[in-house]
Amino acid sequence: IGLNVTQICLTKECTEDEVSELNDDPRVHGVHLRLPPASLTSRVLNALKPEKDVDGISDLNMGRLVRGDLSKGFVPPRASAVMDLLEKHGIHLIYVAVMALTFPSEGTPFKRRQSMQNAGVADKFNCSRWLQAQQYQPWHLQCLKLQPLTPVPSDIEISRAQTPKPVDQLAEEIGLLPEELEAYGRSKAKVRLSLLDRLHKQPDGKYVLVAGITPTPLGEGKSTVTIGLVQALSAHLKLNSFACLRQPSQGPTFGVKGGAAGGGYAQVIPMEEFNLHLTGDIHAITAANNLVAAAIDARMLHEATQSDKALFNRLVPSVNGVRRFSPIQISRLHRLGINKIDPASLTPQDVSTFVRLDLDPSKITWQRVVDTNDRFLRKITVGQASTEKGQMRETGFDIAVASEIMAILALADSLEDMRTRLARMVVGTSRSGQPVTAEDLGVSGALVVLMKDAIKPTLMQTLEGTPVFVHAGPFANIAHGNSSVLADKLALKLVGRDGFVVTEAGFGADIGMEKFFNIKCRTSGLRPDVVVLVATVRALKMHGGGSNVSAGAPLPREYIDENLSLVAGGCQSNLRKQIQIAHLFGVPVVVALNVFKTDTQAEIELVCQMAKESGASDAVPCHHWAQGGRGSLDLARAVNEAASRPSNFQFLYNIEMPIVEKIRTIATKVYGADDIELSPEAVAKIDYYNQQGYGSLPICMAKTHLSLSHMPDKKGVPTGFVLPIRDVRASIGAGFIYPLVGTMSTMPGLPTRPCFYDIDLDPVTEEITGLF
Amino acid sequence: IGLNVTQICLTKECTEDEVSELNDDPRVHGVHLRLPPASLTSRVLNALKPEKDVDGISDLNMGRLVRGDLSKGFVPPRASAVMDLLEKHGIHLIYVAVMALTFPSEGTPFKRRQSMQNAGVADKFNCSRWLQAQQYQPWHLQCLKLQPLTPVPSDIEISRAQTPKPVDQLAEEIGLLPEELEAYGRSKAKVRLSLLDRLHKQPDGKYVLVAGITPTPLGEGKSTVTIGLVQALSAHLKLNSFACLRQPSQGPTFGVKGGAAGGGYAQVIPMEEFNLHLTGDIHAITAANNLVAAAIDARMLHEATQSDKALFNRLVPSVNGVRRFSPIQISRLHRLGINKIDPASLTPQDVSTFVRLDLDPSKITWQRVVDTNDRFLRKITVGQASTEKGQMRETGFDIAVASEIMAILALADSLEDMRTRLARMVVGTSRSGQPVTAEDLGVSGALVVLMKDAIKPTLMQTLEGTPVFVHAGPFANIAHGNSSVLADKLALKLVGRDGFVVTEAGFGADIGMEKFFNIKCRTSGLRPDVVVLVATVRALKMHGGGSNVSAGAPLPREYIDENLSLVAGGCQSNLRKQIQIAHLFGVPVVVALNVFKTDTQAEIELVCQMAKESGASDAVPCHHWAQGGRGSLDLARAVNEAASRPSNFQFLYNIEMPIVEKIRTIATKVYGADDIELSPEAVAKIDYYNQQGYGSLPICMAKTHLSLSHMPDKKGVPTGFVLPIRDVRASIGAGFIYPLVGTMSTMPGLPTRPCFYDIDLDPVTEEITGLF
Repeated sequence: IGLNVTQICLTKECTEDEVSELNDDPRVHGVHLRLPPASLTSRVLNALKPEKDVDGISDLNMGRLVRGDLSKGFVPPRASAVMDLLEKHGIHLIYVAVMALTFPSEGTPFKRRQSMQNAGVADKFNCSRWLQAQQYQPWHLQCLKLQPLTPVPSDIEISRAQTPKPVDQLAEEIGLLPEELEAYGRSKAKVRLSLLDRLHKQPDGKYVLVAGITPTPLGEGKSTVTIGLVQALSAHLKLNSFACLRQPSQGPTFGVKGGAAGGGYAQVIPMEEFNLHLTGDIHAITAANNLVAAAIDARMLHEATQSDKALFNRLVPSVNGVRRFSPIQISRLHRLGINKIDPASLTPQDVSTFVRLDLDPSKITWQRVVDTNDRFLRKITVGQASTEKGQMRETGFDIAVASEIMAILALADSLEDMRTRLARMVVGTSRSGQPVTAEDLGVSGALVVLMKDAIKPTLMQTLEGTPVFVHAGPFANIAHGNSSVLADKLALKLVGRDGFVVTEAGFGADIGMEKFFNIKCRTSGLRPDVVVLVATVRALKMHGGGSNVSAGAPLPREYIDENLSLVAGGCQSNLRKQIQIAHLFGVPVVVALNVFKTDTQAEIELVCQMAKESGASDAVPCHHWAQGGRGSLDLARAVNEAASRPSNFQFLYNIEMPIVEKIRTIATKVYGADDIELSPEAVAKIDYYNQQGYGSLPICMAKTHLSLSHMPDKKGVPTGFVLPIRDVRASIGAGFIYPLVGTMSTMPGLPTRPCFYDIDLDPVTEEITGLF
Repeated sequence: IGLNVTQICLTKECTEDEVSELNDDPRVHGVHLRLPPASLTSRVLNALKPEKDVDGISDLNMGRLVRGDLSKGFVPPRASAVMDLLEKHGIHLIYVAVMALTFPSEGTPFKRRQSMQNAGVADKFNCSRWLQAQQYQPWHLQCLKLQPLTPVPSDIEISRAQTPKPVDQLAEEIGLLPEELEAYGRSKAKVRLSLLDRLHKQPDGKYVLVAGITPTPLGEGKSTVTIGLVQALSAHLKLNSFACLRQPSQGPTFGVKGGAAGGGYAQVIPMEEFNLHLTGDIHAITAANNLVAAAIDARMLHEATQSDKALFNRLVPSVNGVRRFSPIQISRLHRLGINKIDPASLTPQDVSTFVRLDLDPSKITWQRVVDTNDRFLRKITVGQASTEKGQMRETGFDIAVASEIMAILALADSLEDMRTRLARMVVGTSRSGQPVTAEDLGVSGALVVLMKDAIKPTLMQTLEGTPVFVHAGPFANIAHGNSSVLADKLALKLVGRDGFVVTEAGFGADIGMEKFFNIKCRTSGLRPDVVVLVATVRALKMHGGGSNVSAGAPLPREYIDENLSLVAGGCQSNLRKQIQIAHLFGVPVVVALNVFKTDTQAEIELVCQMAKESGASDAVPCHHWAQGGRGSLDLARAVNEAASRPSNFQFLYNIEMPIVEKIRTIATKVYGADDIELSPEAVAKIDYYNQQGYGSLPICMAKTHLSLSHMPDKKGVPTGFVLPIRDVRASIGAGFIYPLVGTMSTMPGLPTRPCFYDIDLDPVTEEITGLF
């Protein structure tokens, strides 16, 4: 909102160091020296960088400037022009004076004083104090006490029994400035990205990834391990830590899942806020995604029913007799190789090329989305009303988190970067085989506007009052399944050099972790220090040969009784292999055994022993579900220890390798396949992507998470298989190629009795029931 | 969240009056007297109502209670049981002690002290001061200065040039308590409904409706008049005032409209926040609406593919060997006349009746919604994927604001009321002709949960820093087109007895105002004091016989040059008739002439003179667009004057009249029709609604807004026509019957060059361009 001005008083005691900090601060776009002549010493003038010297006052012959000139309304030479520029661009300006009281209160020399005040010279600061406040602040976290009950109550009961700290208090405790926070109610707030600029000199903390062995269909508790670990680190070991989590989709919350905020005494609270709406990011993605979809169909209709000339006259309308291209249209012209600015100078051929996207209806890859489990929208026919003049076509809806825009949100590392990615999203192909982008549709600016708040991570807290970022939640098969780069980056600055950021990868380590390293870390430039590999006795028994486990059915006997040989089988196969996969990337592994109440002491000890024999730095049982952070203390200590060792991180493949080779590398080295086999469609798509210049994008495998192979029922470590690549697709905006191994459902359905049957709200107390 | 406890110190100077205020405060659910024995006087004990006496301490024999008992852990007899109850229901409890320091700091008598502290005994107040803070507070509004420029810049430039006050400052200025506010960023906040309880004794302010004459397709500026009027009242006449506005749909914002926050120097700021996402209410409506839709289709699929027994076993699953109905299922059983609680006691016939909604696919009235102008979704076929087993059917999407849930949000007057309305929404008809409701689908509790924050109005401000509520925005044809009852009620309490609440009705007075009176005021019980009728010289000329006006085309000559006879024609016809319509309801009318720069002085004077001759209390020109509140001072004075006169409000029809008679009354008395003509479908539907017991709902006419008649090109005062009723539909949750006069589009489309071509954001300054 307008010109952002902060007035800082530079006292006479101000040091060159302080001026030099203003020089280095990327948030300070200019310094206006309102100094009484007596203070215009060369000391101050020489300290200020010329590009930040708004007034150009350092150019002046000092002898000319006397108090009389100032009080008569003298305007420093460059001030007026620079101020105009700053004002036009709404640039953050730091306003420095020796002391306000040395100035006449009325009729100050600076003509724009009035407009600057209107533009919000909010506060006046002492410079040293202002600079001090901008520094990294040590945490003074007030943790919330936990008194775990036995038996462990339901998740919503535990969440409700704990009163979260006001989010602004939490923010203050971890060193956020009030102006970096945008509260959404009492217990959630968005954090502004300007934090990255303020703390750009601050060293990052340790970076911990939580991944899992190949899970049963019931899930093995990566989220609870993540939350339990930060509760242990921050609330018990007094080491700064942050959990970075994915925002869950509302669809499954009302379908079969009922919530995804952790569980037991390791939760994000209030869990109902976490699970519903949050701060609207998924709604923003839905709005942006569906605006693109509406633009595609409307454009095809308009192209089908209008001449080149009519299209041109509407796309470049005459306003008060003048036709002008909008900036987004000039970008398209540029991409088309038509380097003209004057609409009148286009040839009829230019006009036709410009106005016709000529989308091939059978090659539109963009789908609509909705954040609801609505299986009847998987395949639909649109355009059946008479107003659409017969332009009907088959298409479908995905669940909102499957939108490419979600993957972009998770990978973008600035507003500018998000804007670039949104503009280059490919929505389909023209009849002549050219990719058509969101920018071609003229819609990319509107998408950024819809997403401008979604890019800021949301701050919440665990049951023990330790901080959590919730941000983004892309699919883990057709996308990379990791929370956002930006949340991790903000958290790494906030925790400080000795602190920890614990982030989570979707699915098993073969999928989520591999993508975390090869896609997310490659994009972000961040390097992980430790991998926490989550295992359960249940999943290990399954890999050791236990019978099938499925949601809704009672667990077979061997999962309830002690069975050391099944456990050993699972450790030797899947656990060992997943540890080896992490070691391919040069990162130490700590195995976290998520303990269930049916696990026996012998089983627990066996897992820990065998994990260490397989190369894990350490392996410890975790009791966070029943005990909160206190139950994960051993894990916290093990992670702290592992993080102090050197990590030799390396990527699995060079990004410039051919697409086929990159796929083959993942299949053989990570999954243990003998080779890959490409369908003719896959071969054709790879050729097309190479030809379009997409060859050096990383690979995002869309494979089942229930096996290391492509066959969900092959547990343990399958060998002797060839991985079939059915098709290959691309998310050009997000920046990856995704080969399809089998069929991926991108729209869940509702069961006969969805969770919503039990969800309700007491209209008097506003308490929610039925989330779990 | 949990038990809400406020600790208040009752000093010895405390009066009986103060205790009696605690008795009367509906937010105080119990008072726990932690008094040292010396203070347990009959004075205090007698003052407290027994039902608020949590401890039952007033029952005690005073002689028994000595300090020794207390310090030894004495628990007052009723305390423990009552506290359990309160805790279970999360009830707001006021905690009263003489002074904390008179108690031992450890080992206090009250066993639950620890759990109460965890539950958030946030602050300790002096009782008198606490009670004082609960009283109505006079405003101390700091208005923002406006310095209008000539020529008037674009809306976004004007909005951006003004820095809004922080919303918590605005809230404090108008007497909101900090705990009544939920900030969403810096410039928007939701206001909690508990305000209504706190100020329940406070008299309401004056209630002003802004309506319009029959508009041109370009719109005549009702929103700018509304905003200009409150700017004039609050910032210039120093009379408390609130504008209550509708939240705009995002669809048209990116289509052709580009924004709806007023215009020129009468705007809500920041306008981009107003126009995009706001606080997520429309997103919540979309989520709720589409959950119902997904539930309908999934249920039909499950019923089509499962036996009664299989359905029953899934709908009432055995959990640890026990089957139980959920409360929502018991409601359905009750409606079906099966008064059984034990699932085992149902006969096979009961089971079949219970598990089969037996929806007739051709009679499903529920549509999906999306907040995007997506014309290709007007008519679609869903369920074409093989997983849906051939259960495909034709349906469609509406724009989100056309959802019945939006109409419910606008009419609900509490969370409880919203819950009832959501549950009774009819989504279709069974094959045997019975209505099927959201509660039958088991989804109504989840809907309330999704809508729990949306029910709180959003506080924003005008360009001059005066308060605005933005809340709800139902369609003005298939729904009633008015902002929410709750926002009006909150605002009427906040402005105080002499203050003004200015609310706006959609379309012309014949539609928006008629529905405001007959539907909204009937539901809310509120009575309007003044109608402001907005007219423009442009629209009056059209009614006087000027040629057609349409969006995008240049205005014909007669609209730019002075033409007194056309103006006079419009005044004699449409303006006079609309004034008469307001008088049917017994409410005084002030005509606000929204002045355009092409209007001549003679034209302006003619309108004002003729309006007064037609019965308006006053008629004044308004210049808010160019001048802000200062330009609407005459209107503010006229409204203040008119509001001091007695208003004799009456409804147009008795709610118990037959449906047909209610429709005929509106058609003849308001529209000037000779009679109505019902299609056979309309007759059949009315019979059906009568039979279902919906006969005494009010009527919500779905008619064009471009003419008093059903024929959009008949301007002025059409006569001699019979109003055709093509069909009749019902929104049972919202609570009205809506006859269709012609075809209503509920999904707009995108033009060849939508607004989004110009919408963009500067990634450095985050400034938005292209909204207007």
